[in-house]
Amino acid sequence: MDLFGTAGIRGDVDSHVTPELALAVGGAVADAIADDALAAEGTLTPEIVVARDGRVTGPALADAIAAGAAAGGARIRRAGMLPTPALAFASRGRYGIAVTASHNPPHDNGIKLFRDGVEFDRDAEDAVGTRVADGVGSADWDRWTDPESVAVLAEYREAVAAYARQFGAPLDGLRIAVDCGNGMASLATPAVLADLGAEVVTLNGNVDGHFPGRGSKPTPETLSDLRAFVADANQGVEDPGRPDVDGGFAFGIGHDGDADRIVIVDADGAIVHEDTVLAILAERYTRTSEAADPVVVTTPNASGRIDERVREAGGRVERVRLGALHEGIAAVREAAERTAADREATDRDEIDDTEVAFAAEPWKHTHTRFGGWIDGVCSAAVLARLVAAEGLDALRAPVTERPYRKVNVDCPDERKASTMSRLETALPEAFPEADVSTAHGVRLEFPDASWVLVRPSGTEPYVRLYAESDDVDALVAEARSVVRTAVESV
Amino acid sequence: MDLFGTAGIRGDVDSHVTPELALAVGGAVADAIADDALAAEGTLTPEIVVARDGRVTGPALADAIAAGAAAGGARIRRAGMLPTPALAFASRGRYGIAVTASHNPPHDNGIKLFRDGVEFDRDAEDAVGTRVADGVGSADWDRWTDPESVAVLAEYREAVAAYARQFGAPLDGLRIAVDCGNGMASLATPAVLADLGAEVVTLNGNVDGHFPGRGSKPTPETLSDLRAFVADANQGVEDPGRPDVDGGFAFGIGHDGDADRIVIVDADGAIVHEDTVLAILAERYTRTSEAADPVVVTTPNASGRIDERVREAGGRVERVRLGALHEGIAAVREAAERTAADREATDRDEIDDTEVAFAAEPWKHTHTRFGGWIDGVCSAAVLARLVAAEGLDALRAPVTERPYRKVNVDCPDERKASTMSRLETALPEAFPEADVSTAHGVRLEFPDASWVLVRPSGTEPYVRLYAESDDVDALVAEARSVVRTAVESV
Amino acid sequence: MDLFGTAGIRGDVDSHVTPELALAVGGAVADAIADDALAAEGTLTPEIVVARDGRVTGPALADAIAAGAAAGGARIRRAGMLPTPALAFASRGRYGIAVTASHNPPHDNGIKLFRDGVEFDRDAEDAVGTRVADGVGSADWDRWTDPESVAVLAEYREAVAAYARQFGAPLDGLRIAVDCGNGMASLATPAVLADLGAEVVTLNGNVDGHFPGRGSKPTPETLSDLRAFVADANQGVEDPGRPDVDGGFAFGIGHDGDADRIVIVDADGAIVHEDTVLAILAERYTRTSEAADPVVVTTPNASGRIDERVREAGGRVERVRLGALHEGIAAVREAAERTAADREATDRDEIDDTEVAFAAEPWKHTHTRFGGWIDGVCSAAVLARLVAAEGLDALRAPVTERPYRKVNVDCPDERKASTMSRLETALPEAFPEADVSTAHGVRLEFPDASWVLVRPSGTEPYVRLYAESDDVDALVAEARSVVRTAVESV
Amino acid sequence: MDLFGTAGIRGDVDSHVTPELALAVGGAVADAIADDALAAEGTLTPEIVVARDGRVTGPALADAIAAGAAAGGARIRRAGMLPTPALAFASRGRYGIAVTASHNPPHDNGIKLFRDGVEFDRDAEDAVGTRVADGVGSADWDRWTDPESVAVLAEYREAVAAYARQFGAPLDGLRIAVDCGNGMASLATPAVLADLGAEVVTLNGNVDGHFPGRGSKPTPETLSDLRAFVADANQGVEDPGRPDVDGGFAFGIGHDGDADRIVIVDADGAIVHEDTVLAILAERYTRTSEAADPVVVTTPNASGRIDERVREAGGRVERVRLGALHEGIAAVREAAERTAADREATDRDEIDDTEVAFAAEPWKHTHTRFGGWIDGVCSAAVLARLVAAEGLDALRAPVTERPYRKVNVDCPDERKASTMSRLETALPEAFPEADVSTAHGVRLEFPDASWVLVRPSGTEPYVRLYAESDDVDALVAEARSVVRTAVESV
Repeated sequence: MDLFGTAGIRGDVDSHVTPELALAVGGAVADAIADDALAAEGTLTPEIVVARDGRVTGPALADAIAAGAAAGGARIRRAGMLPTPALAFASRGRYGIAVTASHNPPHDNGIKLFRDGVEFDRDAEDAVGTRVADGVGSADWDRWTDPESVAVLAEYREAVAAYARQFGAPLDGLRIAVDCGNGMASLATPAVLADLGAEVVTLNGNVDGHFPGRGSKPTPETLSDLRAFVADANQGVEDPGRPDVDGGFAFGIGHDGDADRIVIVDADGAIVHEDTVLAILAERYTRTSEAADPVVVTTPNASGRIDERVREAGGRVERVRLGALHEGIAAVREAAERTAADREATDRDEIDDTEVAFAAEPWKHTHTRFGGWIDGVCSAAVLARLVAAEGLDALRAPVTERPYRKVNVDCPDERKASTMSRLETALPEAFPEADVSTAHGVRLEFPDASWVLVRPSGTEPYVRLYAESDDVDALVAEARSVVRTAVESV
Repeated sequence: MDLFGTAGIRGDVDSHVTPELALAVGGAVADAIADDALAAEGTLTPEIVVARDGRVTGPALADAIAAGAAAGGARIRRAGMLPTPALAFASRGRYGIAVTASHNPPHDNGIKLFRDGVEFDRDAEDAVGTRVADGVGSADWDRWTDPESVAVLAEYREAVAAYARQFGAPLDGLRIAVDCGNGMASLATPAVLADLGAEVVTLNGNVDGHFPGRGSKPTPETLSDLRAFVADANQGVEDPGRPDVDGGFAFGIGHDGDADRIVIVDADGAIVHEDTVLAILAERYTRTSEAADPVVVTTPNASGRIDERVREAGGRVERVRLGALHEGIAAVREAAERTAADREATDRDEIDDTEVAFAAEPWKHTHTRFGGWIDGVCSAAVLARLVAAEGLDALRAPVTERPYRKVNVDCPDERKASTMSRLETALPEAFPEADVSTAHGVRLEFPDASWVLVRPSGTEPYVRLYAESDDVDALVAEARSVVRTAVESV
Repeated sequence: MDLFGTAGIRGDVDSHVTPELALAVGGAVADAIADDALAAEGTLTPEIVVARDGRVTGPALADAIAAGAAAGGARIRRAGMLPTPALAFASRGRYGIAVTASHNPPHDNGIKLFRDGVEFDRDAEDAVGTRVADGVGSADWDRWTDPESVAVLAEYREAVAAYARQFGAPLDGLRIAVDCGNGMASLATPAVLADLGAEVVTLNGNVDGHFPGRGSKPTPETLSDLRAFVADANQGVEDPGRPDVDGGFAFGIGHDGDADRIVIVDADGAIVHEDTVLAILAERYTRTSEAADPVVVTTPNASGRIDERVREAGGRVERVRLGALHEGIAAVREAAERTAADREATDRDEIDDTEVAFAAEPWKHTHTRFGGWIDGVCSAAVLARLVAAEGLDALRAPVTERPYRKVNVDCPDERKASTMSRLETALPEAFPEADVSTAHGVRLEFPDASWVLVRPSGTEPYVRLYAESDDVDALVAEARSVVRTAVESV
Repeated sequence: MDLFGTAGIRGDVDSHVTPELALAVGGAVADAIADDALAAEGTLTPEIVVARDGRVTGPALADAIAAGAAAGGARIRRAGMLPTPALAFASRGRYGIAVTASHNPPHDNGIKLFRDGVEFDRDAEDAVGTRVADGVGSADWDRWTDPESVAVLAEYREAVAAYARQFGAPLDGLRIAVDCGNGMASLATPAVLADLGAEVVTLNGNVDGHFPGRGSKPTPETLSDLRAFVADANQGVEDPGRPDVDGGFAFGIGHDGDADRIVIVDADGAIVHEDTVLAILAERYTRTSEAADPVVVTTPNASGRIDERVREAGGRVERVRLGALHEGIAAVREAAERTAADREATDRDEIDDTEVAFAAEPWKHTHTRFGGWIDGVCSAAVLARLVAAEGLDALRAPVTERPYRKVNVDCPDERKASTMSRLETALPEAFPEADVSTAHGVRLEFPDASWVLVRPSGTEPYVRLYAESDDVDALVAEARSVVRTAVESV
């Protein structure tokens, strides 16, 4: 089995993410550092910050990682419990290992690797994966190190607050309900919002690796307590959450176990669609870009409403496979550098400088001006400042939320490749008015911002079809017919 | 000004509980230990455990105390953030200093002193107060110590859970809402209840010394979020909080900043009267006593319903001044020892052995079989087990809640003493059917469990009159008339 | 290969004592505790104190052990760097794991297991060894623990000093030179001696896992700096080391890397024979025993001078195989209990109560009244008090040091068993005046305190012959002849 | 009394450097930071690193400082025990407070303040002194901070070793004896030298705040153990300390309690004169300067042999009052900047750029290219590399050591000012061939490198006369006569 899935190393601590594996990964990272196999551009300190989320199995796994890495000769700084974005923040200029399974159930855990604030790309993962598979012994005895501790949290919280103050307006007592889900957000989001001036009431703000309050994954169901709490508090309150009004909450925030994800609940207790939250941030970041060519990176499953708002703000959208925002950011930047180099070579005058203004998949936002990692705490802070300035309703107003549908079409595994190949021509032929992208499945975008995405499932005998349109039923029917034909004809 | 008020050393960090005072108190305690001025019966380790609650000013004050005490020659163990009852637990066999202002506002802080698990009595407070007033230099340089750290929390939580398992029934998924008030309960109550099998949802479970979620004092107003949360969740649920039922909470728990106080909220979101909670526990502890003479210690302002339940269970009630439960416990035990000695001397056969089965003032419970300190976490655990066994309604049913009234009668400070002296005869004369106690003001108990307490206010020009009775208006009118006559006639 | 050698788990960190092995041992110990497979008499807290000596590879190995044991469900207390005897001290009432290779070279490390202050016996080692061999998975995820830290050193040092004050006289400025060998003794012996009143000058008192100052094993060669330092300082000083005299040292002390061993250097810089040191302590402990039957446990290679001094003091000596003092102590105690039970059964009046007054092999002393572990720091403290009272020369005077010889006789491995079997009769026949013991090889003791021990080598094609006698050449010649005959005749 | 003496804040912990004073100083520094009263050029992080040396009273004083500074609103990083130069290193970019009394006796302690790696100058000391005198309250409660810990030692040791590698040659097993004096050097010098390849044997390398091994001040007397140890080890060894030779030490090193001072002992056990050590380093630093105008800063009491070597190497010497090297460095740099500005203004071509290549007073060296603090560990490392390259004898050879004399001339306090004023003309008149400096007393330098310094004593009724010359008796006689005349004629 491949060590790194789409979510990094993650799984049951009994059978997959064992202390033995953690020891091996720690050793492999140290060995790869010693071999310069992870060398990013520029020079990094050969030091690894190790942190964990609040899971019960975190301390032992973090000890095992530290043991492996210290025996591998890398300098170790133990940072205790941290939100994953805070560990990423601390990994700038060096390396970071987070022991976290994000929103997985409590019996799972995982290992996420960072280099200079950014998750390992595939090459770096391969460098580690190969070493884990082959086994690397320890370093020579006199290169073993003695791990030291480091305090990260205060500096991270201050940095997030300072960053967010560039946007929106002071919170001035704005009331916000935050469901920390017994996870790492407890250590950051309430304190950051309070630092920005909010009055925060938390649900499940005690760290507990059993996630007793609700599941660690924030969904409409697991957030039912938060939704009811906000809705009930706001009953009969005219402009809830304003500090000069008695009671009520301007909005609610839900996080996952390690605080990279964020869900927004409106004053009625309804969940704001994740693509809408993404579109709001994407538009703001595009608008505030000083670059001639602001780019928002997102994933194929993200709604066309993002493209609408980004274009409206004068930017463009690039899509990258799920779980690979960091690679998308790097790709856009590299392309921009190549273009700049080309233009310089051809002596053309105008050079549109490019900025990756924002990168996000649904629920997971990389605030590229703050850092190259997914950061739900930062999202909470920035959104709170925007809500304080404009109100949540006003932020949502320009975002068109069209009906959405997700459909499976039967397709045996062995026919998937040829089906997708056939669809690359069949779908454009069937929908000639659409723009076509075949980078991650086949994605069609229509002039009215409708879109269709067709992808093979990675695990089941289906081809999946996603569509969003004012007339989604018609669009799905037509696209499904094309897909079925393709499946049968191969 | 007297260093120790009824709440120990407590006040504003700017003018009263300053780092300089903390340094001096640390030094005074160490000096008193070195002088054997605090010697309890038996020998204590000359070691001080120092902890703090989550207040912003706690770390600096705890450092100052440690500095003073270490320069005074006492061994120091730093325990970081702890609920006050956990610090008391850790002080068994040694000394403890808690930096806490309990439920005071966030700009206050305070210092609470413990000896072998029990708050300092007045003699011990005097030994410290005198030294602070006189100033004590440091110990000889080579007796200064180097503070070490100690981990207390896990052991305390296990001990509470183990103790509570003696009562009631397993929680088996019982759903409980806990409002930790951003205080120290966050570190203990949810984890202990979860360990006992509950499903816990917390409000304000993130530790924050600004107490952003609500005031640090649990009152009907500050608990409004909790009350609404429980009430709303239980709407339409038949037997809320049962694990086999969808949603709802069996009851709610509110704590103060350092987790010595507890407030219970019922399934309708109403606060259960503090005297009723006290009566429920008092009855259980009396009933489970193996002693022939079980005693419950409480304070003069506590309701007669406690006496009713304790008598029903075969015990008796003793009252002690507010804030002095630990002294009341000691007094009852000493009296029992004297009686036993007398009887032995007179060779009488029957000796009714005495147990202080419970000691409590409203909201503050000392579980004497667990330890000699006030412990809201322990209350939460024991009450949860009782609710799991019998249901909250059934627990409340036998407790009669009579109407209660509190009234001020004008009385210049200079007349207070003579007024109270006159009332010691006037009130018994006016209410000949009542039992009279003049230990802490004048308290009358009537055969139907009605009662009246008259006390001079310590800070304002009033005599205060408390009454509880089925016909409370008539009782108050009559007693007030006697009090007024007394005030005027002196 | 057997996991546990005579020195416990010990070897090169590259090939034998790897982080993987440490992880597995930690898990195995936790699993054995959970299975009650290590249950000593009485109940132990299921908690493991983990410490390490100052070796470079210690931190990583200790992390790995903690990871394994925490994932195995045992409570962990990390104690940082400690002398092995201090870890043993801290393991009383619970379990202890020391990461140490004692006097081995710096590229080695090892793992020593303790239970209630005593090294694991063979049954307990087997319980761990089997689990390491078979592999034990981790505990269920919700039983994993979070290691806490604990401070041991101050308490240990105070306990040693308090214990030593029972013997000899106050040090009153006695000057002592201590060569800590860059090991753990640095953290204890100088401070304990200073606490007892000595003026201590240290060599190699900085902890350094490379053992730069000298090898970690104290030998005449590695102690040459210490010996020269003491001898030179004492040149021309009449009564060196006395506080009222200018300069010089009363004696010198050398320790190994983890402070279980001790070597004594006299005022002339000569090493005091290890058996003489042992005899001095054995005599004192025997003399101060309040038991009717004081016993000293030692090993077969230890000199007859010990027996002389112990008998002189009214006690007896029992021998046990090398590296198994703890088992010898247990055996003597069990035998005494059986005897006592027998006598009670037969209703005899007089019962000679037995005390293991001391247990030691050369350089390694178990002060049984202090605790059941080998403790070089305690030896330093007790010996210093004895020297202060009587002077080192006076302590040595009654001990007769006879010439000693160690000889190898060729003997193929396959003949060893029958040779030894034959010698069990041949040697007694050849030396009819000797007392014979065949428990650990064949040992003959003569009326004039001469002795011979014949044992097969465990690793080489020899039978080894040890002898000590005023006329050692004659004794060796005669015994060797008997041995050769036995080898040839089988 | 002035808070800051020439040695900063230093004195008895009973009467002067009390916990109360430490609390006040911590508060004053934090207040001064908050008021921008310490603002250096550029912006510093408002964060204070607090460390202590190994004195018994250090932990309590450091706690008190942390308490005061945290209550004053400054961010605190506790660094535990550190050599003072390591604390200075850690204070770069921020502030630092060292709890140390350097070489004072154990019942003393002190407080040294650093800003961006440099000791506070008089303005900064005044900003603190005024606040301590006036009393500053704590900051508003919500600005109090929570001190965090930080690990400094490993990074410091690596930095020193990396810096030293620029000089001399690899140590390759060079044998060095280091007497750490039970102080902070134990934590750094042996490890740094070992890292550079030396074989180090330490005396008094165990940290002990009682300084049991010798006084904390390294003098010929307190270093007698070290001197004898080196001399004895080298007896009969031809080229001692060379790794290919059996035994012996190339040289010895002695430090004071906090490792800012260094004393060098040669292979014969003799102390190398402090001015000679200074001259060796000064010459090397001057020679390796890339500036056109290399400057060495030293103090008036330092020998002319320094000037000789520096001039020989192409540089110049500037003198500054004792205890104020950091101010001298700043003054030279400011002067150079002014000169550069002038020259730019006058459009002259040649600008001799100036470098403070080294700054030192006897025993105390500021390696200006490494950092602006006095650093005995760095001296040890650089000197060891120089010795490895050239041998100690070769380093000393070019330094001429002339006879030295120090004489007191009676002079009542009230006549000191006028006497010194008169000597400013009388001495130059008497010695017309000398260069004269009147910046710190009257200092005459003669063409043959002889010199005389005349200064009033700060504490006694003397004028002091220092002289160094091949014919020192004659020079002293003549100068004394001039001084006496001046005293009598006023």
